[in-house]
This record gives sequence, structure tokens and C-alpha cells, in this order.
Amino acid sequence: VSSGREQTSPRTASILIVGNEILCGRTLDTNSHWLCSRLYGLGIRVRRKMTVADDVREIVEAVKLLRNGVDYVIVAGGIGPTPDDVTREAIARALGKRLVAHPEAERIIREHYRDRINAYRLQMARLPEGARLIRNPRFAAPGFWLENVFVFPGVPQLLREMFDSIIGHLQTARFYEQSFTTHLAESEFSSILYSEAAGPGVSIGSYPRMDDSGGWTVTIVVSGTDEGLVQRVASKLRERVSELERARDGRH
Amino acid sequence: VSSGREQTSPRTASILIVGNEILCGRTLDTNSHWLCSRLYGLGIRVRRKMTVADDVREIVEAVKLLRNGVDYVIVAGGIGPTPDDVTREAIARALGKRLVAHPEAERIIREHYRDRINAYRLQMARLPEGARLIRNPRFAAPGFWLENVFVFPGVPQLLREMFDSIIGHLQTARFYEQSFTTHLAESEFSSILYSEAAGPGVSIGSYPRMDDSGGWTVTIVVSGTDEGLVQRVASKLRERVSELERARDGRH
Repeated sequence: VSSGREQTSPRTASILIVGNEILCGRTLDTNSHWLCSRLYGLGIRVRRKMTVADDVREIVEAVKLLRNGVDYVIVAGGIGPTPDDVTREAIARALGKRLVAHPEAERIIREHYRDRINAYRLQMARLPEGARLIRNPRFAAPGFWLENVFVFPGVPQLLREMFDSIIGHLQTARFYEQSFTTHLAESEFSSILYSEAAGPGVSIGSYPRMDDSGGWTVTIVVSGTDEGLVQRVASKLRERVSELERARDGRH
Repeated sequence: VSSGREQTSPRTASILIVGNEILCGRTLDTNSHWLCSRLYGLGIRVRRKMTVADDVREIVEAVKLLRNGVDYVIVAGGIGPTPDDVTREAIARALGKRLVAHPEAERIIREHYRDRINAYRLQMARLPEGARLIRNPRFAAPGFWLENVFVFPGVPQLLREMFDSIIGHLQTARFYEQSFTTHLAESEFSSILYSEAAGPGVSIGSYPRMDDSGGWTVTIVVSGTDEGLVQRVASKLRERVSELERARDGRH
């Protein structure tokens, strides 16, 4: 019953967020959460995400690590006109490219600023050689992509508006997910997770949450690309957790 | 006028968050934001933060990278009793230690669970050899630290309650910060940032924010460990941005 598409193993991605403002706790990074959720919805598994300072060496090192073993790298932040905007230069270095004036980017920026053009604005047109543009709907500074690295502004509204335009370049799929909750402690049903977790193509997560009064709820999530398998494993788990809940209630 | 303490260069840290639930966008990671803010308040500069899946190899690779060139590594998540809780094992491997039963942790866990003790609960007492405990006020599973790596549960309330107990092991300092906002575009005052950004001991950030109607506000932040220097640079910048604002208003 499963289609060919579901048999393909899902694509993977890494996310790099650039910005001192996040590392000093001034700004809550909502971009990476949004990207994780959006990519998951596209059937792309995020393997790692990282935040580094506005520092060329740090960004280069991060890009090299994050590209390792994944299909796509999504980068956000550091492509504006100020001295701390060093992402363009760092991406060029990480991919071994020269930083050159991109003619189309320069045309867009000159047209936007007209007689208010200056060196700092033109700097936003200097991109790694071979980069293709990601159009910015509200602002002159374009995003760009080359090889498997996609670079966006860090302003959340712009990132979200611009992200859609790259989806055609990604190989998407679909994840199926089933979840349920229990008030049992994780250590009361660990044995079940160990015995059911076997087998590729399905992953099981267990996420405890504490409420304001100190009580616990655990959410158990089963996910994978094979809908039937996800349903079978989730039903079995739910049934066995229910048995344990009944056994505990019987003891009290 | 500056005291000896201000001359010491501040300590640095990395943060590692472990958990699939964050990478698939199910959970917003608030722990790393809280840690960034808390560490900044203690005068410790966070250089990098990273999130990886509940996977031994991924965690080992991340810890090795994150330790590089920083004083402290703070880790949160993956120390519970379920199969996806692999952080203890990964930290042991990353630091080249054996995973052994920690007598004090085992005593605490046995005392907590009494006749409900089981293998999954005892597993929470298996820590890298030489680890010291970070007491968990609400729950049996302890955090731990060894060398410069500090490991906490991923449950936000527990992380926050337990973090205070390690502060005595960190070398703290104080950052001074001055900030102001402008409605000028970043590219209108870039030249000022480039000319004033010179000099070690002070960092200047420029953070644009878009409001709901598409208008922009830029916050300029000057920070460093020398209060006098931070004040002088911030005053100078503010004065020069004001001049530009007046010049622009004059043009309109």
C-alpha cells in the first residue's frame, strides 16, 4: 500500500543562525524553531542547528561542520549593510569561492536606493561567485544560495516570506506522526519503549513536561515516513501503556 | 579608574541542547535563550550554541566542537530513563571516560524509588567516571559535571533550579551595556559604525526590527567589560546618529 515516494529515505538539513544578539540573550531565536517546524512539514529532517557570533571564522567553521552528512544547510542572519554583517564573506570562504559583485543584485540595490546609493548598500550585492538570488520582497538586500547552502536575512518576517521561494529546490517528502500522553513516569514505561523501539523507519520520542504545580505529563510521539508502520507501532505502544496505567490504578 | 577585575578578559561558554523534539519543531527551545541571558548576566560570553538529536555520535561530535576554545560547556537534555536518553553515554565517550555507576547518585535514586526501583531508573546513576553531581531538587535523576562540561535535564524548570548550584564553579565578571534606537536605516549609519567600531574591549551591534506595519527600528548596542569605555563609545555613536537624523529631517 505504500507509494514509491514513502520508500525514499527523507532528506536532511542543518540550520545556522548568525548573531551576537542571540548569544547574549537579548533576542529569542524564533527563526530556527520556525525553520525546524517548516522543514519537518516538508518531510525534511533537521539533524543539527547551531548559532554562532557575527565572526567570519566562527561562521566558516560552523558551515563546514553543518554541511557534513546533510542534504541542505539553511543560514539566517548577517547579510545587512553594517560591519557585523559578515555572513556573505564567511559563506564564500567556507565554500572556497571568491566574493564578487553579483550584477543582478547590484541592479536591484541601485534601483532601490537610486541617488541614496552608498558603499555600504552596494556591499550587500557582493556574494560568493556563482550564487543565485533569493528575492527580498520588502527590502533591497537579497538572500542567495549556491550548492546546498541557502542564506536568508535574520529578520523573521523576511525569512518567512522568502523561504517559500526555495521550496522548489528541495526534495520534499511526508512524515506521519501519532502521539498520546500519559501521567505515568517515564521510568515506569521505559521497558516498553526499549522493546518497541526496534526497527528502522520509525522513531519514538518521550517528552516529559512539568506543570505549574509540579505534576508531570509525558507525551509519546511515534513518527516516520511509512504511515501504516507508524500507526501499528503507536497503537501497540498506547495499548501497552494503558495496561500499565490500569495496573498502577489497581495497586492504589 | 578601572579595577583589576575589569582588565581580565571574560570567560567564554558554549551551549549544547539535546533533543529530537526541538529539531522537528515540536518544542521551542527556551533553555538556550535562558542560559545565554543568565551567562551574559554573569559576564560569561556564549560563543556558540548547538542543538543535536538524541544520538550518541551526534552528541560526541558536538561536544568536541563546542569545547574547542571556550572555558565552559553547558549541556541540557537526554539524562532521563528512556532509550532516547543517551547524553550520559555520549559525554563519557566525548571525554574519553568509562560510564560507571556513581555511588552517591545510585543511593539517591534507590532512596527515591525504594521498592519501585528498576533497571531504567538505575541507569540514571551511570555517569562518566569522575563526574560530580548536580543535585535535582524535584526528581531523582541528578545532573553532573566533570572537567569543564556541566550537564542538566532538559525540563526548563529543573534546569533553572539546578543551574544556580554550579555558579560557584564558574569564573564570573560583569558586562556593561548601553543601547539606543533610531528609525534611520542601517545603511544610513553604517559608515559611523565602521569608524567607531575600532578598538578591542568593546563590541557594537546593530539590530533591525520590523513592526507589524513594515516600519523599521534599529537598536544599537555597545557592550564590554570596561564601563567607561562603553559609555564613551556609546555617547559618541549616539551623538553622530543624532546628527544624521537631524540632517535627514532637514532634507524632508
